[in-house]
Amino acid sequence: MQSILCNVDHRITESLDRLFEFLRIPSISAIPSYNQDCRKAAQWLHDYLRNMDLDVQICETGGHPIVMANSPEIKGAPHVLFYGHYDVQPVDPLELWEIPPFEPCIRTDATGKEVIHGRGSSDDKGQILTFLEACRAIYMKDKQFPLNITFILEGEEESGGEHLSTFLAQQKEILHPDIAFICDTDMATPDVPAITAMVRGLVGEEVTVYAANRDLHSGLYGNAAQNPIQVLAEIIAALRDNTGRVTIPNFYEGVPEIAETIRQKWQEIGKTDSELLHPIGLQYPAGEIGFNAVEQTWCRPSCEINGITGGYEGHGFKTVIPAQASAKISFRLVGGQDPIQIRKNFRQFVKSRIPEDCKVEFVSHGVSNASMVSLEGKNLSKISQALEDEWLHKTVIIGSGGAIPVVNDLQREFGIESFLIGFANADDCIHSPNEKYNLRSFHKGIRSWIRILYALGY
Amino acid sequence: MQSILCNVDHRITESLDRLFEFLRIPSISAIPSYNQDCRKAAQWLHDYLRNMDLDVQICETGGHPIVMANSPEIKGAPHVLFYGHYDVQPVDPLELWEIPPFEPCIRTDATGKEVIHGRGSSDDKGQILTFLEACRAIYMKDKQFPLNITFILEGEEESGGEHLSTFLAQQKEILHPDIAFICDTDMATPDVPAITAMVRGLVGEEVTVYAANRDLHSGLYGNAAQNPIQVLAEIIAALRDNTGRVTIPNFYEGVPEIAETIRQKWQEIGKTDSELLHPIGLQYPAGEIGFNAVEQTWCRPSCEINGITGGYEGHGFKTVIPAQASAKISFRLVGGQDPIQIRKNFRQFVKSRIPEDCKVEFVSHGVSNASMVSLEGKNLSKISQALEDEWLHKTVIIGSGGAIPVVNDLQREFGIESFLIGFANADDCIHSPNEKYNLRSFHKGIRSWIRILYALGY
Repeated sequence: MQSILCNVDHRITESLDRLFEFLRIPSISAIPSYNQDCRKAAQWLHDYLRNMDLDVQICETGGHPIVMANSPEIKGAPHVLFYGHYDVQPVDPLELWEIPPFEPCIRTDATGKEVIHGRGSSDDKGQILTFLEACRAIYMKDKQFPLNITFILEGEEESGGEHLSTFLAQQKEILHPDIAFICDTDMATPDVPAITAMVRGLVGEEVTVYAANRDLHSGLYGNAAQNPIQVLAEIIAALRDNTGRVTIPNFYEGVPEIAETIRQKWQEIGKTDSELLHPIGLQYPAGEIGFNAVEQTWCRPSCEINGITGGYEGHGFKTVIPAQASAKISFRLVGGQDPIQIRKNFRQFVKSRIPEDCKVEFVSHGVSNASMVSLEGKNLSKISQALEDEWLHKTVIIGSGGAIPVVNDLQREFGIESFLIGFANADDCIHSPNEKYNLRSFHKGIRSWIRILYALGY
Repeated sequence: MQSILCNVDHRITESLDRLFEFLRIPSISAIPSYNQDCRKAAQWLHDYLRNMDLDVQICETGGHPIVMANSPEIKGAPHVLFYGHYDVQPVDPLELWEIPPFEPCIRTDATGKEVIHGRGSSDDKGQILTFLEACRAIYMKDKQFPLNITFILEGEEESGGEHLSTFLAQQKEILHPDIAFICDTDMATPDVPAITAMVRGLVGEEVTVYAANRDLHSGLYGNAAQNPIQVLAEIIAALRDNTGRVTIPNFYEGVPEIAETIRQKWQEIGKTDSELLHPIGLQYPAGEIGFNAVEQTWCRPSCEINGITGGYEGHGFKTVIPAQASAKISFRLVGGQDPIQIRKNFRQFVKSRIPEDCKVEFVSHGVSNASMVSLEGKNLSKISQALEDEWLHKTVIIGSGGAIPVVNDLQREFGIESFLIGFANADDCIHSPNEKYNLRSFHKGIRSWIRILYALGY
């Protein structure tokens, strides 16, 4: 294994060249005009995996394709399922990118560390390649793997696509993995490796309020005609009370208490309000009173307005009352909160606030349960130790505010536990302009996976 | 005069050709990329007026130019100042136009009447040309006018530009008009001519709320980070109480009561809630309880959200917490409300609701007082009679919800009263897609002005 780790060090620039090639493909899954680029990214992964003599298929889903690959079977060896996604977030506002989003490069950030620049560098192409490059390094030396590996790489993670669930259900009879690895999460801190054990669920909704049958002159109709922006604003304002709690009936059903021991661990590794908020220019946790910023994001549910649009948004001024206004709203769920019930209650909450002269329409942008990864089982200690050997720091159990629906799918379809192991950091600007991935995360991430695979294999 | 009216009837298609030429110029004053088109519209008016041997100038203002023309002086004759604006509103949402906005034509509307289609057909190019074509018809026959006329045609009415006030102040010593005509208002109904005596003022504000120093992943930061859309929505919701009243301190200072006699007159000519709201697909007055739709728009102040934008507004979904969100908000004022004081109180109202971690910025998009045109003076009866002769219905005194700031400028600079006489109708879709102007309004509007000019002249 040591010689493989050395090869990784010697050939890291070649690994980076492959990553850059991958990052140059603008595989934005939410915008239809990029559909061909998503397919191109899938094809790129197909070709990459073929070079390891894997049995690779590009599986059609009705949406963006899923790339699946299996290593040659080794009887009796454990079977690992690896999940990642090749799609990326939209890039607007484009003008805020210091370097174009799809022109990857190595740059030095404000703190002097070397980072990989580009949309998808951290979420999730860079993370995928830590695992793929680990496998590649092993294959180049041994021409085989220490265990059975199935790769499942999807293209709809950023667009709330639901084809993956169907696909996994279809694999239920064919695949029999023992354990899953998902590389789409953060470290505890840039030096402290982490396994993410709590992941929030998601309800994504789009609400459109309609009033008059056309845009109106606000002088001729101002006062007399319902203004859909006003109606929408009043609904949004009513969604939270002045203690930061969501006001939708029964919203908090199934939300678990946080164990005092966990709270303390997080404080020990320095996950303070300022550690989370200072880098983004803020100071005070904006959520529920009585919880600090880390608790609010890791284990409390949230309601966020992700976008709003209505009326005249251009230069200057236009005295108009628009015919419609709409907002994209998402809820992050924890513990046993029921996303279907919450969507139902939310829509009822909105409908009950729509004036008689207005209409409302809803579009669902996906639902997923929160998940708690079990911390039992023999594998946890082996993996924690492998990470500790690479990073020379005890591995920490953390939560994640982001939704990773696949965890529930894998639990449901294969009855296996997922280990969420990633090397991203809070300041990676994922979903924002100037996304980056620490060069150190990429390099030591590859090494970490090699250690983990050998720790679990023969 | 009769022969001139006949000529108008015989040559109405030539008048329409000239209007279409004018309407084809996309003189959108609010969007800088159309600056050259605004200048083109000014030049078109210049050439048009030159053909009547008028002394015409295109006056630079620092913004869009003002076209001014004077007829050869007739000693002792009354001096009329005519005001109109050649700029038009933006056209978005473009996809809702059944015929492109700058391809004018005659079409038959749902009710079977012939209308002139195109942006600016009603607001205000079509209305301007009722007066200009009236003058042209008179000139073609008499080679002179029955009185002294000054034309002032500006290009910043739709963009809250303030150059006109400065310009009029500069003319104070040079011009000495006795009376002003402003052709930018509605009839009482499609058959009932009207003089508009009450016009609402305006305060236009743009508010931008800033939170984090970049867009954030709503999973990783949802709850902990301030969401500027949420903050903005809460402020907008707080602007009105549940009786439809604006909650800004002292907002209603200077708002006059409505005389019972006026209320009754309006009901007599059928200005009911359904007359105003039914055509736009609505039923119930949305403003202050205790006032009907016409009262709410003609003589009660309002607060309207004209536009809002923040976060991801594109296709699909993006789980982002934006760094900023903004709204365009306007207030319509009546009677003695003080726009400067209201802007001050509004900004204070907003600032007091900005959380510690957020910042707010304001941009003013203009202020203007409301105005009440005096109904004294010998001219009113002459003008009312001239309109009645053309439309065969008694002329009605009405109010207008729209702001027409020039009325105050003319009162202040020249101490003269303005007669707001227009031939537009509530269903003209001004500021909306598919703007139109009734062909009958254009034709009888020209004839009306000829009657008015002769009634006031020798």
